[in-house]
Formats: sequence, structure tokens, C-alpha cells
Amino acid sequence: MLNRYAARYEQHLFETIVPFWLKHSPDHEYGGYFTCLDTEGRVYDTRKYVWLNGRQVWMLSRLYNEAGQKPEYLAAARLGAEFLRRHVFDEQGRCWFSLTREGLPAGYQRKPYGAVFTMLGFHEFGRATGEEWYQQKAHELFGKVRKWIEAPKLLGRPTLAGGQPVSQLADIYVVLAMALQLGDRVAVREMLHAMDANWDRVRRLWIENAVTDPERRFEWPDGRLICVGSNFEITWLLLDALEIHPDEAARRRVLDTLESALEFGWDQRHGGLFYFQDIEGKPMLQLEAQMKLWWVHAEAICALTRAYEATGEERWLRWLERVDEYTFARFPDAKHGEWFGYLDREGRVTHQLKGNHYKGCFHIPRALWLSVQAARRTQTG
Amino acid sequence: MLNRYAARYEQHLFETIVPFWLKHSPDHEYGGYFTCLDTEGRVYDTRKYVWLNGRQVWMLSRLYNEAGQKPEYLAAARLGAEFLRRHVFDEQGRCWFSLTREGLPAGYQRKPYGAVFTMLGFHEFGRATGEEWYQQKAHELFGKVRKWIEAPKLLGRPTLAGGQPVSQLADIYVVLAMALQLGDRVAVREMLHAMDANWDRVRRLWIENAVTDPERRFEWPDGRLICVGSNFEITWLLLDALEIHPDEAARRRVLDTLESALEFGWDQRHGGLFYFQDIEGKPMLQLEAQMKLWWVHAEAICALTRAYEATGEERWLRWLERVDEYTFARFPDAKHGEWFGYLDREGRVTHQLKGNHYKGCFHIPRALWLSVQAARRTQTG
Repeated sequence: MLNRYAARYEQHLFETIVPFWLKHSPDHEYGGYFTCLDTEGRVYDTRKYVWLNGRQVWMLSRLYNEAGQKPEYLAAARLGAEFLRRHVFDEQGRCWFSLTREGLPAGYQRKPYGAVFTMLGFHEFGRATGEEWYQQKAHELFGKVRKWIEAPKLLGRPTLAGGQPVSQLADIYVVLAMALQLGDRVAVREMLHAMDANWDRVRRLWIENAVTDPERRFEWPDGRLICVGSNFEITWLLLDALEIHPDEAARRRVLDTLESALEFGWDQRHGGLFYFQDIEGKPMLQLEAQMKLWWVHAEAICALTRAYEATGEERWLRWLERVDEYTFARFPDAKHGEWFGYLDREGRVTHQLKGNHYKGCFHIPRALWLSVQAARRTQTG
Repeated sequence: MLNRYAARYEQHLFETIVPFWLKHSPDHEYGGYFTCLDTEGRVYDTRKYVWLNGRQVWMLSRLYNEAGQKPEYLAAARLGAEFLRRHVFDEQGRCWFSLTREGLPAGYQRKPYGAVFTMLGFHEFGRATGEEWYQQKAHELFGKVRKWIEAPKLLGRPTLAGGQPVSQLADIYVVLAMALQLGDRVAVREMLHAMDANWDRVRRLWIENAVTDPERRFEWPDGRLICVGSNFEITWLLLDALEIHPDEAARRRVLDTLESALEFGWDQRHGGLFYFQDIEGKPMLQLEAQMKLWWVHAEAICALTRAYEATGEERWLRWLERVDEYTFARFPDAKHGEWFGYLDREGRVTHQLKGNHYKGCFHIPRALWLSVQAARRTQTG
């Protein structure tokens, strides 16, 4: 059933998506990757964004490891890995957010995500090359990121008397992604439990920032924020985690939540999936809330192929058809390759760029590749 | 010529805009103002945003001082001024960005703008009440803000080896606004000179972040950023400044720049003024770049009435007609009062809210009141 999607996804991945990044993004002079690329692939910002550099190292290394060991993938992965190794760490071993073209620190974020994707990139690159330094550094970074999430003060973030303690979905899913990467069964189990704090049992949705004090849960918009893209991403991570620690009730809850996220996020008027929503339908602080973003749709496709693989249920194929049709009719650029990233609510392209400080060689190729693999397992399973 | 606008603006200001804020925004229990108000004025976020609380104190005090000394304006101004006096300062005398409903620190921004609007609010409130503490504190804050802008490290912002030194337009115009508020002729002159760094002589536009190194001026999108709303706001501030330090060449440059900002910012396809643009037409990092914002249009109206007052030239009336027509056809909410804040590129309302952490009792009433005053001076002049 997935085959007709998988064949198309595989071709799109290897003939359109990866070639765009291999051609336009490597900086052969200073190392690392440019990700701010316009429609045709020209650089419009020379900075190297750390999390996108780490993600690209991971993606190229993963494709090298699992899709035929093409030497050009490994060479391009090395360009990013060695650039990060040289430039990413500050004196305290934390990671910068952005670097100049040459590798000098240009931005610092007080968040752990630069380190998360450096860790993932280093680990997968170490698997590809057998170079121990990268694997050891990945393990070390995993420990550090967990500490930083426990105590954000270590990243320079103050604790304020009026701040609301929250459980952040992003923190849970990056730790889960790292734990799955390392095969760390104990950490995977911890994250399966941590997820409970972010599940809204009434609407069956994963909440972005779950306020710990139940009395003040929905007092601020932060606590009411829903990003269905995060819901889709956590779906397939949890399905992976539940293969390591099987739990049928938990698996049903994950699949239930996927269905409500699709229903909650789908724009009944214009089609496509919203970026941000308020769980109670109250006003949004984010100006871009109604826009349709590439990664939300890529993650939905990935979650749906995995949900179908896990259950064989027709309902996931019906949703996949709907999301796939919307996505492939609007996001890909037939002329210059890759996808546009941003549509307005009506589905018109608002930004001609192919990459920026959020969009790089990651969500699309990862979703396509994981979907291809899910389809293959379904066929042989 | 301005009279037909001014009569309408005055009525709109005192019958629609101010009543909305007086009714929905004061927190009579804890003091201060809620600004996150939905279509009907209901609170959807209980935090008190410092810069919007300071702005509302300033606005209500200014209207009290200059529009008939209505006691309900002063009473409402006091509610904000005393709340800020009790809660806004941290141990080092810096200002928080947001407070809980009760006044505990909820957010810190490492930027000077909370202090800027606290200063302006305190000074105007001190003028209204004659309470010396507020005026003295305003003078003290003015000195501190200037130091913080010189040395952002004092606010907790690190200097990075790869950072690009820039002249920030916002820093210049907030200092200019404070200097004009205090009647500080020396500081006004300094800001008139500082502005040179942000003027692009080729396109005749004020640049948001002018990179000091001319070789790297347009290397990153930050250095290419144009916000025509800032261009309009600086226009009328500079026209005020040039009455204190007359300079005909500088005045012509300010008016030239207003005209190019209007031409650059006007959306030829759908009408209205863009929020953010790239001076070279390259891709934008801001997802909301193409949206049409209430304050950009309010500032354009204010700049145009002031430009007409200063010159009597027909071209400003033609532009005023165009901007006024677009604005009043789309932003005001005839049913529940006040304006919507955010339209998509096509001019459709995207957010039903009347206030948030950026939109409060400030840009609209200030622009309307300054326009009414300009019209009155034109008539009597």
C-alpha cells in the first residue's frame, strides 16, 4: 500500500533534494554549510547555523550508512563535522548558535539545541568513519545536554520569581532522539515517562509547554500552545521507543494522539496543517501561526507512513493521501529543485527561499528516507 | 486641508480608541494594565508587559496634560505608574520585560526598551501630577539607558568575536524620543548626528541595523533590513528635532527619505505597507515580513500629517489619502472598537486580538493625537 508513495519519495530524495544541498550548501573554502539559500541556491547569509550544520552532518552520514555508502555523501559530511569540531565549542564546552563564515562565534542562544544536533551529527558521522573522537564526543554531549535541560542556569538562563515551571516537549523529544541514536534503553524509558506531563487527556494532544502547576496550566498563551508539527515528530519517535519498551496501551495513546493532532491541525477552509494553535482557540501571539510550513507537512507524512507500518489500518492511508496531495502540489519547486518552506494560509508561497536558519538539509530528506524504510519493512514484514 | 482628517481622527481617538483601553485594560486588583485583549477586550494572558505598561502611562498622562485634564485619564495613568514603580526594577536598577499579574518578574530581555518606556511614562506622569519622584527617576533612567546602549554587556549581552558592530536605528530613535521628552538640546543634537550612520544614500532609506564595517555592510540579512514603520516614526521625531536645531539640508533629507520609504514600502499588488523588507530584495528571515501591521500604518499617517504641516506640499496629502483609505477600511473593528493589528498581505485580518505584547494603548492614540495637533497648528499657523 505504501509502495506507490515510497517509490516516488525515494526518487524525489535522491534526484532532487540531496543534490540541491550537495551542490549549493558546502563551503569548500572554510568548511561547514551555508543554509541561507535563495530559490536558485545562491547564498544570501554567510553565517553557519550550528543546529543546521549538525543536522546536515547527521543526514548525509545516515544516508551514507544506510543508502549505499556513496563517497560523495561522506566527503560532504566530513566538511561539516570537521568545521563543527574546530569551531562549535565555547570555553565552557557549550555550543554556539551561529558562526561567521570563517568560524568565529556570531550568536549564542542559551538553549541546548545547537549541542543536540552537533551530538547527533557527530555520532552518525562516527558510525560512518569509525573515528572514535566523534562517538566519544557525542556521548559526552548527551550527558551535558541532559544537565543543561535540568539546570538552564548553566546555559545562562536566569530563574525568575514569577516564571512558570514547565515541561517542554522539545526538550523531551530531543533527549528521546539522542537516546534512540545511542540505543540508550534507560534514557528512552525515562523519556517515555516524562512525556506524560505534556499529554492533554481531554483533547488528546501533546502540549508544547506544559505548566507544572495545574491551577495555572492555561493562564498564559505559552501553556496553551499546540504545534501539530511537534505532535507528528514525537509520534514516530515514540513508535520507535515503544519497539524497545513495548506497551500496547501507550502505543494506542500515541496513535490516538496522532489522529487528534491531524484533526486539530488541518485547516478545514484552505487545506494544509497550521503551524501554531491555541488549545482553547484563544488569540495567538505568533504572527506566523496560520502559515503552512514545510516541516510540519514532512513530519506528518513520516508519522503517517510509520503509523501505517505499525497498524496496517486504512485510516492512516486516507490521511496520507490527503497530506501528500496538499504537500506535493505546493511545496516542491519544479524549476530549481528542493521545496519552498513557507506558504500563507491560502497555500501561496510567501518566501522564495530554499533554506534559512531553520530550514536546511534535514526535515524533508529525513521524512522521505524514514518513509521509504517504513514502506520497505511493510513489504517484507 | 488636514481638517477633514483631523476631525475624524479626534472623534475616533476619544470615542473609540481610548475608551476601549480604559474599559478593558486596567487591573483594579493588582494595578498595571493587561494588554493581551481579545476581540471583545477579554484578557487572554495575565502578564503585564513592561514596555506597554510604560507606554500606556505615557499616553494617558499626555492626553491628560494636553487634552482637557480629564480625571479618569489621570486615575488610570496612576494605576500603571505606581505598579511599575513597585515592581519594574531588578536589584541592579534594570527593568524587567514582563511581570506576572501580581508583579513578580516573569521575563527579562537584555534590551533597553522596557526602561525606555518606563522613563517616558514616569516623566509624563510626573508632569501631570507634579510628583518629583517620577521626574527624577525619569532623568536617572535616561542616563542609564544611554549607558546600556553604549555597553550592552551591562544588560547581559555578550560581545562575540564574530559579531558585527552595528548602529541600531531603534537605539537612536528611543534616545531621541527621550531627549525630546526631556527637552535635552545636547542629546537631541547628538542623535541628529548619530542618524547619519543609518542612512543609505543610494536608496534614501533608514536602515535598521547599519553595519559599521563598510566592506561587510550587506553581507547578512540583518544589515539589509528595512522596516518602513521605523522610517515613518523617525521622520516625525526628526522633524521635531530639527525645530530645535534648524538645518534646511537635513530637513530636505528627512522629507526625501519619507517619500522613498513610502514608495519602497507600498505593496503595488495589494496595497498597504509591508512590515519588513530587504534593501536588495533578497529573501527575508522574518516569516511575518509581508504582513500589514497596524503600527506601520499609524506611523505613516502621523509622518504624513507632520510632513504636510512642515511644507504645505500637495504630495503629502496625496499619500495621506492613500494610506488613510487603506487603513480605515481594514484595521478598525466597527463592532467591538479599537483596531485589529495584523492583516495578511492581501489585507485580510489574521489575528482577531486587539492587544498583545507589542500592541497596546500607544501607536494608534499617539499617531491620532499628534496628527490632530499638527492639523490645529496648520490651521492657526
